[in-house]
Amino acid sequence: MLATIILTAETIGVIAFAVSGALLAVEKNFDIFGIMVLGLLTAFGGGVVRDLLLGLVPPVFFSSYTMAGLAVLASLAVFLLYRFGGDMRLLSGRDITAIVNFFDAIGLGIFAVTGVNMALEHGFADNPLLCITVGTLTGIGGGIIRDIMAGEVPSVLRKNVYALAAILGAACYYCLMILGIGILPSVLAAAGLTVALRLLATYFHWHLPRPRS
Amino acid sequence: MLATIILTAETIGVIAFAVSGALLAVEKNFDIFGIMVLGLLTAFGGGVVRDLLLGLVPPVFFSSYTMAGLAVLASLAVFLLYRFGGDMRLLSGRDITAIVNFFDAIGLGIFAVTGVNMALEHGFADNPLLCITVGTLTGIGGGIIRDIMAGEVPSVLRKNVYALAAILGAACYYCLMILGIGILPSVLAAAGLTVALRLLATYFHWHLPRPRS
Amino acid sequence: MLATIILTAETIGVIAFAVSGALLAVEKNFDIFGIMVLGLLTAFGGGVVRDLLLGLVPPVFFSSYTMAGLAVLASLAVFLLYRFGGDMRLLSGRDITAIVNFFDAIGLGIFAVTGVNMALEHGFADNPLLCITVGTLTGIGGGIIRDIMAGEVPSVLRKNVYALAAILGAACYYCLMILGIGILPSVLAAAGLTVALRLLATYFHWHLPRPRS
Repeated sequence: MLATIILTAETIGVIAFAVSGALLAVEKNFDIFGIMVLGLLTAFGGGVVRDLLLGLVPPVFFSSYTMAGLAVLASLAVFLLYRFGGDMRLLSGRDITAIVNFFDAIGLGIFAVTGVNMALEHGFADNPLLCITVGTLTGIGGGIIRDIMAGEVPSVLRKNVYALAAILGAACYYCLMILGIGILPSVLAAAGLTVALRLLATYFHWHLPRPRS
Repeated sequence: MLATIILTAETIGVIAFAVSGALLAVEKNFDIFGIMVLGLLTAFGGGVVRDLLLGLVPPVFFSSYTMAGLAVLASLAVFLLYRFGGDMRLLSGRDITAIVNFFDAIGLGIFAVTGVNMALEHGFADNPLLCITVGTLTGIGGGIIRDIMAGEVPSVLRKNVYALAAILGAACYYCLMILGIGILPSVLAAAGLTVALRLLATYFHWHLPRPRS
Repeated sequence: MLATIILTAETIGVIAFAVSGALLAVEKNFDIFGIMVLGLLTAFGGGVVRDLLLGLVPPVFFSSYTMAGLAVLASLAVFLLYRFGGDMRLLSGRDITAIVNFFDAIGLGIFAVTGVNMALEHGFADNPLLCITVGTLTGIGGGIIRDIMAGEVPSVLRKNVYALAAILGAACYYCLMILGIGILPSVLAAAGLTVALRLLATYFHWHLPRPRS
């Protein structure tokens, strides 16, 4: 049950992040292989960082044939849709950015949660700093790698309520699990919190204080 | 005694690097959470890289609650000073760069030394290449992560006498410790050497040969 | 025999990647120490990533005194040739880019192969995803670090038939070794495949499909 829920969440997260990476690569007009590479790095970069920090080597990615295949297919689908999908070619850079943002929010929320879960599973439940930081880094890691590879300042520093949304999602999941709330409501509540915060912040232009207005 | 000296140095280094990251984030007008994230990444990035290279997982950062709290407070203080400090808002980008440079030099010197020290403590005293390289990477790592995240070419490639200062500080500390000089004079001499070289190089515009003048 | 062939290949790869990093640093007019740092990071970045993913800590780089010395000498030679070589100063940025590309191709081919080899040697022969991905990352890792440090979008996303060439070389070497073909023909065929693909793709302007033509 736990395994199924986490696996389902991971699958959605991998596809969402692969799509966000592939879309950014489309916007930059990278070739079909560059699109797949950026999709893969976005989908698995956060998880590999998490595994290195927890000492899990080789990282679980390397036995995830199905997940790797899904990420490649998702990236390929983005390319094909854009290349042959007619209407999709009419999308402006701004439209693509908005769609990247949507998929990025989903990946962020899910990976912040599954990152915490991996730390809990490996016996670090008594270390909230580790669990919440590793969860946050799993969530933001793939997007940081995607943005730096594409020559952009990472979303986590640029976008509204981004790091905060990831940290709150990770902390929420950690607390719910420690309190013994079941896995399904914990995943839904915590990942939902992060995704909702990011989407609402984007839609309503919420922003945290900046040095200069 | 050794532990106290290293802990004191680490504390100063963490605060100096957090301030350098937070100031660069202020210059880039990131929001308050982005400022804290960049402060944290700058303060702990080098140490996490060091721990991964030495096989210390999870990295010591994850049990450093006090240090993490100090880095957050230091970053927050930079934001508040800039936002509400009146005079500080009058600082130009150039002034901020100069202050970043000052704090960066302190962090660089201290982390080059504590990086070597961590390698010595873990039984690598007979491998100078490892000790000195790990020390250098601990020193330059946080700044590299800070600069790349902010979209800048890293200081280590851009600034005068930067890599050289870090390597000399790390090598100096390694030699002094191998020679059995006490910990306090070794830390002061080696970290002081790096800090002095960086500040003098900046002040007097020392520079190493370049391909084109 | 096996050890000698791999060592020879590694040596050529280290020098080729150090030269590619040093040349890019020359083009950016970094100082002599920045040039050596970029040469070293390019030559050893991919291998360090590989070792971290395989759990080999400290990474083998840290006991490779000769290799590290060679990379420093190669970077220094690039600087001296450019600074005092007369004719080399007449090279345009475009010429330098072409030479970087040549050395980069050689490093890419060799490290894709030696990366797979390291995974095979450590008992991962039954996991093709791991062997081929680790090989590919060993090949592309140094160049990614080089390009990001220099403020460029990494070659792997920008250049024609780059990721594909690395993956095909790594997969080719994996298959030949699993089939029991000897080490020398396997290395030559697989590294040769990657190098040839990259050079031909550059020369004939081969390119894979892009979203927009």
